Amino acid sequence: MKKEGLHCDFASKTAPRNDRQNRSRLYKHKGAFKWKGIKPERYKPSGKDWSDIVRQTLIGSRGETARFHLRYFEIAPGGSSSFELHKHEHVVVGIRGKGVCVVGSRKLRLEFLDTLYIEPGMPHQLRNPYDEPFGFFCIVNARRDKPKILSQRD
Amino acid sequence: MKKEGLHCDFASKTAPRNDRQNRSRLYKHKGAFKWKGIKPERYKPSGKDWSDIVRQTLIGSRGETARFHLRYFEIAPGGSSSFELHKHEHVVVGIRGKGVCVVGSRKLRLEFLDTLYIEPGMPHQLRNPYDEPFGFFCIVNARRDKPKILSQRD
Repeated sequence: MKKEGLHCDFASKTAPRNDRQNRSRLYKHKGAFKWKGIKPERYKPSGKDWSDIVRQTLIGSRGETARFHLRYFEIAPGGSSSFELHKHEHVVVGIRGKGVCVVGSRKLRLEFLDTLYIEPGMPHQLRNPYDEPFGFFCIVNARRDKPKILSQRD
Repeated sequence: MKKEGLHCDFASKTAPRNDRQNRSRLYKHKGAFKWKGIKPERYKPSGKDWSDIVRQTLIGSRGETARFHLRYFEIAPGGSSSFELHKHEHVVVGIRGKGVCVVGSRKLRLEFLDTLYIEPGMPHQLRNPYDEPFGFFCIVNARRDKPKILSQRD
C-alpha cells in the first residue's frame, strides 16, 4: 500500500497545492494529540472568563463545504471555557483525560468517548478541575451565531 | 459533583421523558466502543458490495437540530464499506485499531485520531484488511444525497 504524506493533498494532481479549496485531505495524528498540518491556536485573544485553552481546527478553516466544523480543544489543569449560551448546538466528545461540563444547572463528568449533545440556548461551560490535560472534540455547525457570555458560576 | 445517569435527559425536568426532542443528552461510553443508550445497527439491510459493519448513531436520530450527524462505525477484520460516491462530504476519524480508506486512486491508512476529509464527489471505500476491529467516527451533513454505488475495485 502506498504510504501517504501528512495532511496530503491527494485530490488535485494538476492544480498547484494552494489553488484549490475544499479538497480531500488526511491529517495524520502525530501523537500527543497533535496533527500534522494543524496549528494549535489560542482559543480567544484574551478574556477573564476563560483560561488555558488551546484549539486545533481540524475541519473548517480550509474552505471545506461541509456544514459542520470539527475542532479539538485542550484545557490545562485548572482551566475552563467561557460560561456561555448560543443558538447553535454543540457536540462534545471526550478524548484525552477527563473534565467537567456544566450544562444548565448540572455538572457532568466527561471521559474518553463520552458524547454530549448540548441543545440550542443551553448555558454551558467546560472545565478541567483535574491534574491532567482535558482534551475533547467539539463539533459545531459551520454557520453559527455568536455566543453570549454569562456571569461566571460555581 | 453530582453523578449523572447514562444518556441522561437533563434538559427537561417537567416534560415526560419522551415528549421532548432535541434535548441535551450525555451518552456515556461503556467501554469496548459501546455507549449507553445507543443501539448498534446493521449498516444496510443487505448487499454484496459491503460486509461486516456495525453502525452506532450517536447524534442524528433523536430529533437533534444540529446540521450534522455523528456516527461510529466498526468494520470487522476482512470487512469493507461500499465503494461509493455522493455529493456530501465525509469526515472520518480513526478511533479503534486501524484500517484503510480508498479515496479516488489512493489508499490511505487510518489509525487512532487520524482525520480524513473527503470532498464531494470523491469515490471512497473503508476497508479493514487487519486482524483487529477497525472503528471510526464518521461525521456527515444532516441533509445529504444518496450514495451512488460503484464497481468494486482492488
